[in-house]
Amino acid sequence: MKFLSLNRELATNFLVDFVRAEVTKFGFDKVVLGLSGGIDSALSAAFAARALGPSNVLAYAMPHRDSAATSLEDAKTVADSLGIPLEVVDITAAVEALREGLACDDAVGLGNIKARTRMICLYEKSRSERALVLGTSNKTELLLGYGTQHADMASGLNPLGDLYKTQVFALSEHIGLPRAVIDKPPSADLWVGQKDEDELGFTYAEVDRLLVRMIDRRESNDDLVEDGFTREFVERIRAKVRNAQYKRQAPILAKVGLRTIGIDFLYHRDWGR
Amino acid sequence: MKFLSLNRELATNFLVDFVRAEVTKFGFDKVVLGLSGGIDSALSAAFAARALGPSNVLAYAMPHRDSAATSLEDAKTVADSLGIPLEVVDITAAVEALREGLACDDAVGLGNIKARTRMICLYEKSRSERALVLGTSNKTELLLGYGTQHADMASGLNPLGDLYKTQVFALSEHIGLPRAVIDKPPSADLWVGQKDEDELGFTYAEVDRLLVRMIDRRESNDDLVEDGFTREFVERIRAKVRNAQYKRQAPILAKVGLRTIGIDFLYHRDWGR
Repeated sequence: MKFLSLNRELATNFLVDFVRAEVTKFGFDKVVLGLSGGIDSALSAAFAARALGPSNVLAYAMPHRDSAATSLEDAKTVADSLGIPLEVVDITAAVEALREGLACDDAVGLGNIKARTRMICLYEKSRSERALVLGTSNKTELLLGYGTQHADMASGLNPLGDLYKTQVFALSEHIGLPRAVIDKPPSADLWVGQKDEDELGFTYAEVDRLLVRMIDRRESNDDLVEDGFTREFVERIRAKVRNAQYKRQAPILAKVGLRTIGIDFLYHRDWGR
Repeated sequence: MKFLSLNRELATNFLVDFVRAEVTKFGFDKVVLGLSGGIDSALSAAFAARALGPSNVLAYAMPHRDSAATSLEDAKTVADSLGIPLEVVDITAAVEALREGLACDDAVGLGNIKARTRMICLYEKSRSERALVLGTSNKTELLLGYGTQHADMASGLNPLGDLYKTQVFALSEHIGLPRAVIDKPPSADLWVGQKDEDELGFTYAEVDRLLVRMIDRRESNDDLVEDGFTREFVERIRAKVRNAQYKRQAPILAKVGLRTIGIDFLYHRDWGR
């Protein structure tokens, strides 16, 4: 745990300040986010509720008919505990129309369709409510590519993006999220019975111990193996991180002109303000 | 025109090579793209057909019941002229389900929903066909933010992203795209009668002459005004480029750890290959 430990009070205050600064700087005072009933979106919502006031955090539960009933219940528990408004938008009709139109009978394909349909809903609410989309992907998911591009990985700002799942748990305890949300096994709930750790084949605790040393501390495979990780696990995880690099970046462009987006036209987002 | 002129043969060959290199490097041999019937997607498809062979360019026309009938006809003309396979996926049912579920009666909101629904279709085809998503946004659109995030702006690689619209026209003439596609007024066809230049309030020829000097050549507002652009136009366009910066970048994260995605964990996409 040593490389994953955080000053919980300091990190919480910093992330609350981050949300307030990045939202208000662009002239907004509200955020929208999807509340899945899981711990990540609950923590993001908690930061935003402290940063902007609970009434400025517009939460959406977006069930599909195959979603676990507990997901919606847990989303309601989170919204109640934070005092934020929760609206329910059922995505079943849109997802089924897409599934049929695309003749998609693959579990992963269907999961992507659900996740992206939710993105469409949130971005429409973002437009109609003049509210930024708050991200809920943690660092473990982003590094492993365990998320859907242009879906749950899409947002305007993301207070969780540099927190490993282990650290999400720690801050969720600190900030006092409901026990039901902290204690349940992590799941994207994109198909019946899905559990993150079953699907990944390792626990978040295991992979976070490795990732923080591999990525943050830049330790070599040999050093990691010497310290007790199996070579197979180290190589598998490094390949996963590398193979998911494209999900974390804007599309590749071919340089033709003197200044090219993403290559040498690289101002920060709030350039000139 | 002087700053916008290109060696057409050289640029064409370079962009064809770019598509081949970026697709095959990741172990793929196919691309998918949406053919709107417009010039941008036609040019992207033409580059890809030369790079990968026409049968490896999987084109999709994705009409909504309110789309112009000419859009589908023009998409067919393009596919026939390039010899690439074209499939039609009607997005009406999915879009109408979303419109209803979200109670959206706003033209821009509905346009975004259509554009993002098309993204879902293309990314599902990308998965099921093991083919990369080929981008079709040109540099003028990307700089002005005249496109929808997580929709037409989403792709794996984009051969047009550093070509101004004026240059897209020049290369389309050079590569011999069908006249019907070159000659029609540019339109996103997201609502009935939409025309890009009416909506923007200026022509692509005008704004490209300004953008190439403002962005590629880094000329100041004062210099641009001295050379004959009105100050109102110069300031309006610079603000547009700045306000759209967020659409060209990954979400903002708060730095907590030693190495942070998008801040100091920045390897190129094909790092380690």
